[in-house]
Order: sequence, then structure tokens, then C-alpha cells
Amino acid sequence: MTSPGITPPARPTFADIEDAARQITGVAHRTPVATSRTLNTRTRAQLFFKCENLQRAGAFKFRGAYNALSRFSADAGKCGVLTFSSGNHAQAIALAGQVLDIPRVIVMPSDAPAVKRRATEAYGGEVILYDRSTGDREAIGRRIAEERGLTVVPPYDHVDVIAGQGTAARELLEDVGSLDFLFVPCGGGGLLSGSAITCRALAPGCKVIGVEPAAGDDATRSFRTRELQTVHNPQTVADGARTPSLGTLTFPLVLNYVSDMMTIDDRTLLETMFLLWERLKMVVEPTGALGAAAALHGPQQIAGARVGIILTGGNVDFSDLPRWIGTNSTP
Amino acid sequence: MTSPGITPPARPTFADIEDAARQITGVAHRTPVATSRTLNTRTRAQLFFKCENLQRAGAFKFRGAYNALSRFSADAGKCGVLTFSSGNHAQAIALAGQVLDIPRVIVMPSDAPAVKRRATEAYGGEVILYDRSTGDREAIGRRIAEERGLTVVPPYDHVDVIAGQGTAARELLEDVGSLDFLFVPCGGGGLLSGSAITCRALAPGCKVIGVEPAAGDDATRSFRTRELQTVHNPQTVADGARTPSLGTLTFPLVLNYVSDMMTIDDRTLLETMFLLWERLKMVVEPTGALGAAAALHGPQQIAGARVGIILTGGNVDFSDLPRWIGTNSTP
Repeated sequence: MTSPGITPPARPTFADIEDAARQITGVAHRTPVATSRTLNTRTRAQLFFKCENLQRAGAFKFRGAYNALSRFSADAGKCGVLTFSSGNHAQAIALAGQVLDIPRVIVMPSDAPAVKRRATEAYGGEVILYDRSTGDREAIGRRIAEERGLTVVPPYDHVDVIAGQGTAARELLEDVGSLDFLFVPCGGGGLLSGSAITCRALAPGCKVIGVEPAAGDDATRSFRTRELQTVHNPQTVADGARTPSLGTLTFPLVLNYVSDMMTIDDRTLLETMFLLWERLKMVVEPTGALGAAAALHGPQQIAGARVGIILTGGNVDFSDLPRWIGTNSTP
Repeated sequence: MTSPGITPPARPTFADIEDAARQITGVAHRTPVATSRTLNTRTRAQLFFKCENLQRAGAFKFRGAYNALSRFSADAGKCGVLTFSSGNHAQAIALAGQVLDIPRVIVMPSDAPAVKRRATEAYGGEVILYDRSTGDREAIGRRIAEERGLTVVPPYDHVDVIAGQGTAARELLEDVGSLDFLFVPCGGGGLLSGSAITCRALAPGCKVIGVEPAAGDDATRSFRTRELQTVHNPQTVADGARTPSLGTLTFPLVLNYVSDMMTIDDRTLLETMFLLWERLKMVVEPTGALGAAAALHGPQQIAGARVGIILTGGNVDFSDLPRWIGTNSTP
């Protein structure tokens, strides 16, 4: 069943995701699945946490980045890649390019977390900063790419990137069997789209729920109104989900394959993040805790259900901790 | 070879540790081993982190506690167990008793981390508080035990407890093969003794290094002087290693089977802890980072070596974070 009036793109298909899974084998980590008796008891459900915070470069983004870069022609690989990203996609492109020996330029907002910028540079990426409040990262990036003959790999609106991201849900379903729900953080919708395509193929009864920070609720509004909505520079601790809107590929994919969208306020998000740190002993970044926050606090009736949750990343700038603890009531 | 003049106790032997390994199978977690390319590059060594922060109740202590309690006679089990502990052993006894349906009383200092006290109570342990600066936990505990007919299982100076703790190193050696070094945090020396017995049997060339916080350096001084030294209520962030001295079993075991002892100051310890959070994406408590701090900052020449490190626990009270960040220069 597709959504009337808005046709999903021809690609990526689940075959593209299977192809991506072969492409990244032995290079990306097959990340573990964590469980917690305490959180199962609290929710009266079986929760399966896919630990993409343990992925190379600390986030699921390496899957899509490596899948995309490893398909470059020899000529394109020699010239190099350019991307624009608030952080984790930048690190992923920087590392994937390092593995594949492809030069890489990263256009990054000047207020991106320092830890993400340092890591990008440590992987040998050339970082170009811009002012998020005045510049358009996509326009800046495309101009530089044209000048230097670089191939642009954007953070989500790209067939190979979406296909790569879809491999995380595929591994999760392979490891734990079928699911009733899958909660997926949503920024530009690449992971959400890939996850939804995978579930449609492997677990058609599984409800895929996309989760955004409340301040950056563009995808939720787009889902409800069936028209593409945008946000401008939203203020949220979920820095990985501050993207202005879904993309030309991810918007119709989300409309057609995702069951529902929901939002989480920053206070609930930080409480959930610290709860994951405490119970799973796992460092998850705020954006990475969106899915868990939705499972714990959302309207879905998950009692008795088998619930997948993608912990998308673990790249925390610990200098943010005092601010987070001030915001948050729990610790 | 044993240390001249100070004979090690007849038990526990490595056979006791193998017996403990059978006893805890299917109840304790077989914890994973983490690695980090970044930390390997930095040390030019191969580091293998045994993740006891992912053990049940968040620390290696469950191994010894369950091994001890599961050997209680039916009568002793009906009456119950008492222990005294600054935290992780308390939680471990509380949980092991819950699993085995044995009543349990925990004598705990009133300034123990709130998260550890809450967790102990959540596992159904009866907590009795005492003032660390004036009371003697052992005397208080033994008096209550006598009054109520409870069996005392102390945190480290106990054959079954030491044997249980020795199973962590046994799993590590089974999983990664032989090691040149094993760095082990030391409070009362239970884990260190058990680890050293295991290495003597399975990897006799492996140097076992015990690591203490600088403020609680009693075991290091005891090791150097070959006379039992004590500390009184040392002020350190490594709350799991504030024990006053080695025990009557662990002192001779450490003297005979441990290669060297060293200390780590609190600032270096917290820097290392945050580094583990950042690179391993793993929540490790300060005490749990002692071994890693020694591997990264100690005098041992580990370049080129295969190095085991036991991450002993992950029970962090996040309300301590602002204080820790104030102490620490890195984040």
C-alpha cells in the first residue's frame, strides 16, 4: 500500500539495502543489541536496543557514508567528496573516506559540538565552517564542490545513504526476530526511511515510529499535513535532528512507509538519556535517545509487545554536561 | 614461586575459581570485551577491556556474591545474609539474595552514593546506615548478624567471594587468549587476588598489576613494605576503593601472586573515565577506570604488548557529574 497522491521514489528498494549490507560487511561493525530487565519491567514490554553508538565513528551514519563512497568511480574517488553535516555524518564521511583513500571536505556549522569537529579532523577531513544563522549549508557546499570538482554526498537525501542506513534495522530483525514496533530518531529521515523499507520487507506487521525533538517537529507536521514543512535553526539538545526538513526522497518514503511520527521535549529527552546511561551503562547522545524516550513516554500501547529501538549515536561533548544537568531534574 | 616468609592461604585455588565459573554460569552475565582503535593507537598496544560494568547489578561483585550465597546451607539461606559495603558488593548481595530467595541485610555508610543505595533497596535488601567517620562497619555488622542469626559475607576477605571474582579474568583469557599485562583495580583486593590466581594458572607470563587511588594507597604500601598498612576514610572519587586495608586472605595472595602495585591521582582517574566514556561509549565509574588509567599513564612499558584491563563497574551517581567536571580539566 502506498500513500495516495504521493508516490514513493523507485529507489532505494529493499534490494538496495541488501546490497548495502553486503557492501559494508567487514568494514562497518555489526553492532550488538542491548536489553535491560529494569526497562522491560517498567514498560512491561521486551525492548531491544540496537547499539549504533558502538558503530564506527560513534553513529549509524558510517553505514550510509561507506555504502555511498565505496560506489564512487575511480575518477570521482580521486577528486574527492564533499558533504555538509552538523556532526555525525561528517565524521562518517571523514572516516569512510580515510578507509577508502578518498579526499573529503566537510562543510560544518560553526556551532557544531567541538567533539564532533575534532573527530572529523582526526579522521583527516578538511573542515569548512559556516554560520548556521545566516548561511545555507547546502548552497555553500554545492558551490565549493563545483569549484573543486568534488562529488556531494548529502547527509540523508541520497539513495546509497538511505540504503546504507536501512542495514541497521535489517541486522536488528535478523538478530532478535520480528518486532511489533520500531522507534527511530528522525532528523532528515534517512535512517527512518531505510528502517521503514527494511521493516516493510522483513516485518510488515511492525509499526515504524519516527521520533523528533519537539522544537524540530517539521517531519511530524509534514507527516500530518502531507505537505513538506520546514523549521529554521531549531533550539534543541538533539543536535543531530536540527535539519530544516525531510528531503525529496525521504519525504515520500516517510509518508508511504512510516506508521506514525511523534515528538519529545528536551527535558524528557535528557531524562531518558541519563536513564540509558544508568541502566544500559551506555553513552548515548541526546539525539540517540529519541527512540527510547518515545517508547517510554509515547502514546503507543507497547505493553506485551516486542519493541526495537535504534540508539543512533554516542558522540557526546562532555562540556555540555553541566548545562544538561541544569536542564534536567533527575540526576 | 611464593613470597618468602608470607605463605599464601590454602584456598581459594584455581580449582575453586573453575568451580565458581560453573556455579555462576547462566546466572551472571558473560560480559563482552571491548576494544578501541584510538586507544590502541595511542598506547601502541592491544588493549582488551573486560566490561564488568555490564555485569548484573553493574559491577563484577555479582560474581563473588552469587558464588558465596549459592553455597549457603538450606538453614543458613532461610536465616539470611548480612554484609557491609560501600556500594557495589551491597547491590550484588541484594540481587544474588533476590535470585536465590535469601533474606539480606546491608550495612552501608551513610555517605554512600545515592544511586547505589537506591539500587540496593530496589533489589529488596534491608539497608542499615552507619557514620563512616565514627563507626566500624565490620563491628556493627557482626553484632547485628549475631543478634539476628545472619551469615556474614564480607566484601572481599572470603574464599567464595575471591573465587567468584577470579572468573572475570578467566573469561577474558578464554576470549582473547594470553596477555602480557592485566591491570586490575584494587580496593580490598578480592578481584585482584582472584585475577592473579587465574593468571598464575592460565597465563603465567602475564604481569598482574593492582591499581589504587593515590589517597587510598594502603595496598601499594603493604605490597612494598610487606607489612599490612591501613588508611582511614580516604578522600577519593574512587568510592569503591576506599577500603581501609587488604584482608587476611587477600594480603598474602597479593604479596605472592601480584607483579606490582601502583596508584592513580583523582584528576588522572577522572580524565581517563571521561576518555572511556568518549571512546568506548561506555559508562564506567571512577573506581572502574583505575586499570585503564594505569595502562595509559603508568610506568609499565606496554607498547607492543597484549594488555587486559578490567572495567570493574558502571554505577555512577550522575549528581556527582558537576563536581567531577569541576575537578577535571578535559571536558
